[in-house]
Amino acid sequence: MILEGIVTTINPDGTVNLAPQGPIVTEGFSRLTFRPFSTSVTYANLHRTRCGVFHVIDDVLLLARTALDLEFEPPALQPAVVVPGQVLVDCCRWYEFEVERIDERGERPIFDARVVHAERVRDSWGFNRAKHAVIEATIAASRLPLLGQEAVQAELARLRSAVDKTGGPAEREAFRLVEKFVGRSA
Amino acid sequence: MILEGIVTTINPDGTVNLAPQGPIVTEGFSRLTFRPFSTSVTYANLHRTRCGVFHVIDDVLLLARTALDLEFEPPALQPAVVVPGQVLVDCCRWYEFEVERIDERGERPIFDARVVHAERVRDSWGFNRAKHAVIEATIAASRLPLLGQEAVQAELARLRSAVDKTGGPAEREAFRLVEKFVGRSA
Repeated sequence: MILEGIVTTINPDGTVNLAPQGPIVTEGFSRLTFRPFSTSVTYANLHRTRCGVFHVIDDVLLLARTALDLEFEPPALQPAVVVPGQVLVDCCRWYEFEVERIDERGERPIFDARVVHAERVRDSWGFNRAKHAVIEATIAASRLPLLGQEAVQAELARLRSAVDKTGGPAEREAFRLVEKFVGRSA
Repeated sequence: MILEGIVTTINPDGTVNLAPQGPIVTEGFSRLTFRPFSTSVTYANLHRTRCGVFHVIDDVLLLARTALDLEFEPPALQPAVVVPGQVLVDCCRWYEFEVERIDERGERPIFDARVVHAERVRDSWGFNRAKHAVIEATIAASRLPLLGQEAVQAELARLRSAVDKTGGPAEREAFRLVEKFVGRSA
């Protein structure tokens, strides 16, 4: 099963990189398998530091901002407990992990990691169609060069009603940012 | 904000009715506003008993089965703590509620309820594209008479890849049930 969340890794200059990742999670959350693109900052950081923090979140505004690399006030962070990393203060749960095996033979590199520390902060919201519409919109927007303007705009038009009907202010703001991102590239 | 989950209500014969509902939830989860169709069992039961139990779940197989009224082994239940109702044993959280106000002036009846007891059982999974694809597929299937075969089949075709790529056995089984439901009505 894939779980979509946010991973923090440490940059060479000591700053923190936030990126959406959808690792494969084993039953019991003991292992995480990441497949970051080899051109990504997450890939470079995981390769160098061999550790990071994966967060279960329900904040799609943060997800959209990090996925589309938008400028924004970075969220509050605190030091991780076991690994030399940083934890999002506002998350549902976090999983500190150590990379045990890297396999680069396939099309996408595979980072197989062991969870060395886990904590829960609060409950996640639960099923909400607007939150997921933002996720799908963000994925479409991040594939803009591949899919093209017309296909991505059609996808956004299709997703908008669920955001309007079932979302709150954060979901509507996130969707607006995605629309702006796509429109700017037109 | 809308939260999609499952509500249990008590039928006139004392048995339990399970139904998906997406109430509006206030900050802090103190109030739930339901808008059940006036032809639904949930509407009739809420009208008569003025109470029920709302569950936050991450089990889309249960959601699909209840939404499409499929036959299945009913899930384990236990008595609610405060209201005369029944609680799903396998859920993430539950909210026992009492209906305080019914407004039937609009197109859809509005049941405004106060949460009188809440408990958490376990964490929900978190964001997963397959789970939400099943929810969207279920919604499309339940609107089959309105949308027509062609539109619903097109929606299912569009949603299938997220289920295959990011789901587990339960998500694939749920999607298969939705496809079967739609195909049977062809």
